[in-house]
Amino acid sequence: MNILVINSGSSSIKYQLIDMPSEIVKASGLIERIGESISKITYKKSEEKITAELPIENHEKGLSEMNRFLMHAEFGVINNINEIHAVGHRVVHGGKDFSGTVEITDEIKEKIKSLSVLAPLHNPNNLIGIEVAEKIFPKAKQLGVFDTAFFQEMPEKAFRYAIPNSFFVEHDIRVYGFHGTSHKFVCEQAISFLSEHKWPSRKLITIHLGNGCSITAIKDGIALDHSLGFGPSNGLIMGTRSGDIDQSVIFYLIDQLGYSPQEVNNVIQKQSGMFGLTGYYDLRDIQEKAKSGDKHCQLALDMNAYRIKKFIGAYASVLNGVDAIVFTAGIGENSSIIRQMVCQEMQYLGIKLNTAKNENLQNGISDISSDDAKVKILVIPTNEELEIAKQSYGLLSE
Amino acid sequence: MNILVINSGSSSIKYQLIDMPSEIVKASGLIERIGESISKITYKKSEEKITAELPIENHEKGLSEMNRFLMHAEFGVINNINEIHAVGHRVVHGGKDFSGTVEITDEIKEKIKSLSVLAPLHNPNNLIGIEVAEKIFPKAKQLGVFDTAFFQEMPEKAFRYAIPNSFFVEHDIRVYGFHGTSHKFVCEQAISFLSEHKWPSRKLITIHLGNGCSITAIKDGIALDHSLGFGPSNGLIMGTRSGDIDQSVIFYLIDQLGYSPQEVNNVIQKQSGMFGLTGYYDLRDIQEKAKSGDKHCQLALDMNAYRIKKFIGAYASVLNGVDAIVFTAGIGENSSIIRQMVCQEMQYLGIKLNTAKNENLQNGISDISSDDAKVKILVIPTNEELEIAKQSYGLLSE
Repeated sequence: MNILVINSGSSSIKYQLIDMPSEIVKASGLIERIGESISKITYKKSEEKITAELPIENHEKGLSEMNRFLMHAEFGVINNINEIHAVGHRVVHGGKDFSGTVEITDEIKEKIKSLSVLAPLHNPNNLIGIEVAEKIFPKAKQLGVFDTAFFQEMPEKAFRYAIPNSFFVEHDIRVYGFHGTSHKFVCEQAISFLSEHKWPSRKLITIHLGNGCSITAIKDGIALDHSLGFGPSNGLIMGTRSGDIDQSVIFYLIDQLGYSPQEVNNVIQKQSGMFGLTGYYDLRDIQEKAKSGDKHCQLALDMNAYRIKKFIGAYASVLNGVDAIVFTAGIGENSSIIRQMVCQEMQYLGIKLNTAKNENLQNGISDISSDDAKVKILVIPTNEELEIAKQSYGLLSE
Repeated sequence: MNILVINSGSSSIKYQLIDMPSEIVKASGLIERIGESISKITYKKSEEKITAELPIENHEKGLSEMNRFLMHAEFGVINNINEIHAVGHRVVHGGKDFSGTVEITDEIKEKIKSLSVLAPLHNPNNLIGIEVAEKIFPKAKQLGVFDTAFFQEMPEKAFRYAIPNSFFVEHDIRVYGFHGTSHKFVCEQAISFLSEHKWPSRKLITIHLGNGCSITAIKDGIALDHSLGFGPSNGLIMGTRSGDIDQSVIFYLIDQLGYSPQEVNNVIQKQSGMFGLTGYYDLRDIQEKAKSGDKHCQLALDMNAYRIKKFIGAYASVLNGVDAIVFTAGIGENSSIIRQMVCQEMQYLGIKLNTAKNENLQNGISDISSDDAKVKILVIPTNEELEIAKQSYGLLSE
């Protein structure tokens, strides 16, 4: 079964065509700068990669261009549109109503739309992707996979804030969580890997370090706690987002320094995090500079790793122990320095890194813990597209 | 040496006259409702307690009334004002400049005044207390003991926020911490108790649960991390304060629900926490209601204990282990329920409560851990006044 996975943003669409259950990626790519004078489409089929620049005025045109590649006589992978059996859509916010993958209906679309108030930068664009795909693939099943779904089984003590009840009851203000598709994917990969290696896998901490960063406490495959909350801003230190910050700072900036709330929000979301501390966007630059003695960069790395360590400790408490921790996503998979800093001086939990293994990852899943460690440390490449395809396939096979 | 300890608020003054180094409290009391039509002064001398209602128009009048009691022919403990050798003042905010107790000078007063912007509800009133005491006790040494001082040795990675550097450099926005006098007092008590019992005391977590709540990670007597930050709002769930909350919620209330920043701050500081979740101010009421099946009250207790557990975990990570945890202040000393909830399912750290000991505290310091626990659990009555007297005496004896 060919499942097209779509992640639709404001001016971009990421896509992958995956055969299920074989999990073979037939083609993948990216449509960028939609609506600008010159847009760009990338198409990848096994080793081949083709890039085209042309005007793509809207998302509908974008998917049509993608189709031209998918059905191309020379580069294509299908003969006609009907060979796409289902389209799996990433939807960022499923609120409190979606705890799993659903087939899209008018009612579901209304729901996704109404949740836009909670994810104004994401849900409207996800919805555009859905509506365009319905038009272009009228015979395919359309499915929605929600980033928040994995966190819907969290206990109430973990998802509530200590503010008046009315905000929860009347306005749905609570922890929703994000990156759930990634956390779920690596969680399942970890459980299967650990079982093969006869290692317990009941208590896991998954650490997603990419542009956005988050960490999840997982027991028996169920997320019990998570660092991102009502919005995708708090918890770990991210590229440009502050992560956790004392609310007093926000009110001080407004009351004493004359910032508007919007300006403060902008500072905290777009000018903070590793960038705000160092002036650099790319962690690799920050690591380079720190190595050559830049104190701001060294402090930013220290703070970043320290924050992750504290969350690992907090979640070990939530789980009453930990069997394995999992690093994933761009930074989690590629920064041996961050992994090393996070894992040092954590003997009290039984976390102990094998430095050589940390520096030389294997293909696929790497176990980088030392032989006498009591906690496995895994690096698992995340694959949100495959997870969406798996969940879509799972629902269709029911 | 008689040291008068003063904690001056906007309409109240708490006082204690302590003989040092014997630590004998000669008299203590409270002046309340200063400036209202009927004010109240309480005076306590060993078992005797006297209360008087009369108009007290300002702080100066308040200290004069206190003096009438202190020198009273029948109830008094001194013969004349000059028997008060020093006055130790509680000052909430010492900013980054005060890491210990100081003798008050004009320069110091200026500094305390300039820090009012960081503690507008406290520092101005502390300063009034100082100025009035200088007038009334002109021959006594005046000393300032800062609530923030204990946290001045925290490492930079712990006291910085991941926001642009300029906010730290130009506006001193960082973690300061609060309740430092209490944390320092119980830390020292714990170290001496544990040493007597041949138990290691290098890694401590002190938990101050009163009207305000906070928790500190302490290594070798030095505070390494602390849950309150730039202001006294974040971290643990408090009586009416939310503690940690995702900043997205704040901006949502402002942008989507039309609150002003001041209204949001008011909600988070005065209508949240245990009160916001239950409608009750007093933890005893909440515990009663929870027992009789009130779900809101049970949830609030669960959330409260859960938040403390997560901080214990995080700080175990900061310390790479923990030798003892210490409960103190009103709730910490009196709520066996909270202590029990916090300590359950924490075997991974070696925390194990002795239920009987938890229910039946001893006078002074109680060790409520089970015999086979790897972490001591102590309940230590805090005594900020005594700590202020000790620090004042310490400085004067140098």
